[in-house]
Amino acid sequence: MFPLDAVLDRIDRDLDRSLERLFALLRIPSISTDPAYKDHCRGAAEHVGRDLAAIGFDVSVRPTPGNPVVIGKSRDGAGPRVLFYGHYDVQPVDPLALWETPPFEPRIATLADGRKAIVARGACDDKGQAMTFIEACRAFKATTGKLPLPITVMIEGEEECGSENLFGFVRENAAEFSLDFGLVCDTGMWNAHTPAVTTSLRGLLYEEVTVRCADRDLHSGLFGGAARNPIRVLANVLAALHDENGRIAVPGFYEGVPELPPEIKADLLALDLRAEDFLGQVGLKIPAGEADRTLIEQISTRPTCDVNGIIGGYTGVGAKTVIAATASAKVSFRLVGDQDPEKIRTAFRAFVRERLPADSSVEFIAHTAGPALQLPYDSPVLAKARAALGAEWGTKAVAVGSGGSIPIVGEFKRTLGMDSLLVGFGLDDDRVHSPNEKYDLASFHKGARSWARILAALAQ
Amino acid sequence: MFPLDAVLDRIDRDLDRSLERLFALLRIPSISTDPAYKDHCRGAAEHVGRDLAAIGFDVSVRPTPGNPVVIGKSRDGAGPRVLFYGHYDVQPVDPLALWETPPFEPRIATLADGRKAIVARGACDDKGQAMTFIEACRAFKATTGKLPLPITVMIEGEEECGSENLFGFVRENAAEFSLDFGLVCDTGMWNAHTPAVTTSLRGLLYEEVTVRCADRDLHSGLFGGAARNPIRVLANVLAALHDENGRIAVPGFYEGVPELPPEIKADLLALDLRAEDFLGQVGLKIPAGEADRTLIEQISTRPTCDVNGIIGGYTGVGAKTVIAATASAKVSFRLVGDQDPEKIRTAFRAFVRERLPADSSVEFIAHTAGPALQLPYDSPVLAKARAALGAEWGTKAVAVGSGGSIPIVGEFKRTLGMDSLLVGFGLDDDRVHSPNEKYDLASFHKGARSWARILAALAQ
Repeated sequence: MFPLDAVLDRIDRDLDRSLERLFALLRIPSISTDPAYKDHCRGAAEHVGRDLAAIGFDVSVRPTPGNPVVIGKSRDGAGPRVLFYGHYDVQPVDPLALWETPPFEPRIATLADGRKAIVARGACDDKGQAMTFIEACRAFKATTGKLPLPITVMIEGEEECGSENLFGFVRENAAEFSLDFGLVCDTGMWNAHTPAVTTSLRGLLYEEVTVRCADRDLHSGLFGGAARNPIRVLANVLAALHDENGRIAVPGFYEGVPELPPEIKADLLALDLRAEDFLGQVGLKIPAGEADRTLIEQISTRPTCDVNGIIGGYTGVGAKTVIAATASAKVSFRLVGDQDPEKIRTAFRAFVRERLPADSSVEFIAHTAGPALQLPYDSPVLAKARAALGAEWGTKAVAVGSGGSIPIVGEFKRTLGMDSLLVGFGLDDDRVHSPNEKYDLASFHKGARSWARILAALAQ
Repeated sequence: MFPLDAVLDRIDRDLDRSLERLFALLRIPSISTDPAYKDHCRGAAEHVGRDLAAIGFDVSVRPTPGNPVVIGKSRDGAGPRVLFYGHYDVQPVDPLALWETPPFEPRIATLADGRKAIVARGACDDKGQAMTFIEACRAFKATTGKLPLPITVMIEGEEECGSENLFGFVRENAAEFSLDFGLVCDTGMWNAHTPAVTTSLRGLLYEEVTVRCADRDLHSGLFGGAARNPIRVLANVLAALHDENGRIAVPGFYEGVPELPPEIKADLLALDLRAEDFLGQVGLKIPAGEADRTLIEQISTRPTCDVNGIIGGYTGVGAKTVIAATASAKVSFRLVGDQDPEKIRTAFRAFVRERLPADSSVEFIAHTAGPALQLPYDSPVLAKARAALGAEWGTKAVAVGSGGSIPIVGEFKRTLGMDSLLVGFGLDDDRVHSPNEKYDLASFHKGARSWARILAALAQ
């Protein structure tokens, strides 16, 4: 039997045990953005480390000022040296009441159309995705006694809160991780039948704004009419962020935003992404972004601004006649092309400060900042991956832009000088970051098979 | 000894035990707006009932669809029949972390300027205030064996969430409570030395607005740019509620708002309320209301609109890249003159609906609605009360308008045909509805003495 066929056969026969291993990882509530789950994040890191060691990687669980990074190294084979990146941390689970089963008790569900899916927080993002690569490595090792090329695995624990400590870790250890290119499994397919390589990623700038007026909460009867209300100040600022055509009004925001080459734009339009399909799945109908851009541009190649959270005053049941002392919002920007996150942070803060009336002040918390990224369309790695994916799925793999951000991929480019190949098996209905997150069983199974094919192709 | 002197002397000698009785009531966490505290509200009602019975009132704790109403009746004396109104429920205590001591463990504190004060949730609003009247009754009974005029006491448990069930209770029992006039102790002094009768009260309309867009929370990377964001929709609506001069933009809102008679306006201006005094105490400087109105008008005789609370999306620690499915705000209007709360509710809802873009819908919760109220300036009851207050405090009592609302006082007027005399001993620095609420010991002690003097005057 040709080695690749044997590896694929091994993945098929080992599927039940692969799922058991994934479920064990999914049971660990490794929520990185909330400090209360710090010990669980460490537990997830140690769990992943033990698993990589069992395959034969030389493993170290490396400390950072935040959650640890798991490093596994194998020097088998002689092809290009690759750095596989994934993350063991997950998003918070709120609103918990909307989960049909507890988020950290994984299960197999049958969807309305008959598809089987793994349901749990992290089933897709990114535990399920990362495990497709690890299971492919395991099958190579079990079948051929070695991996087909030199692989370093890096599984971090702070992707969902901005990967800030990983940036420092990579910089401090740049020589160790400057390999030939990166592999990342944290993206999606075009649809359930069509695999995809993600060739661009939007950047992210995330800010938290707190407006403060009085030095205490006030009775709205006694002070109402005369006291500055921070919720109103904040609402005015947030309402000013977009103009009537959906363009972002922060001065200089569009500096560095490229117009797409006509042939790339034509490829995008040929995908014929329809609002009734893409937005319809979540109960929406009309693209709400820049009025002069198509839907696929709005979600993949154009920058955006969203308010991700807001809170102020009384938010419990019933009525309270209070004027709050403070109101806060979390505001993020998705960036493309050469937009500079730090310049936009400065411009955003100035935009807010210019709109503060008397008796109000503002404080900012800087959460994360990462620029956008582009893999060259003529990369040979891209061609090999597309061919391998096409062989597995029976459909030509498309090259698409992603609306989401994986900030560390930009750091790999800048600090390590490496391009990254982004291949993932998520689907639009995976409810990533939402209650009842799932990952298709086919994504998990054929994902592992896809990585086996890609590794074999890259080794040649 | 003239009976009134004996009563006042009794109040002085009984002060320590009066405080013990108040503290016992303050220890009950009777938060009415949160259903979790329902049993504590019932406990507070029964506590007040036992206390009134101990004085000699004929007591019943009367059920409503919500919290019970405590009724105490005494037929002593032959003067006008009065209905005293107060409430045993209190505001929520959030943010709890800002309390220096637990909100339901009352204590005596010494303020920076040497004043002594009772610190607890409800110390002023309204447990401390209501107890000034009850202690005056107790002293009359202990000293003279009877009360000076026929008194019905009505202590309710839902004032802080709109008194909705009390409206029905009063209507169903209108014959029983249609007496000669009402007495209310839920207002303030002009300052720590100057007593006041409150001759007008602003009305209140309180609405809750929930904007809904997608049918689930979305990943802002995957959907950002194309998905309608309910926080942005809500911010746009809230920002439109006021124009650039601070006027409220809801069509028809100012219908029924009177211009003050010139002499009343002159009296108000003569009080010389300064922003540095009134706003300075809470860390503010500049009146933020209608640009063409003075500070005292903004807080007492003009209508207002405030956002009392807002919530949507991720509000925990750190960053979450989510587009929320919903966002909610609590919005209230203070009303004056003949403004019609139900007409304004309808106009407000239409105002919101007209501003909804595609892919958004809105739901409303009606919390409370009560019109404004005015006691005639030529009422003989007013003259007697001002004289009694002047005798106790050594300073002429002023007649002022209050910015706050006591919705049931309007119901007394409409359903029972009774005017109400509003006398209270709260101060601007009492932190009513805020952490570390307090009530000056002098307000409590001289408040009870004031009521003794007022009852004696009304009996003549």
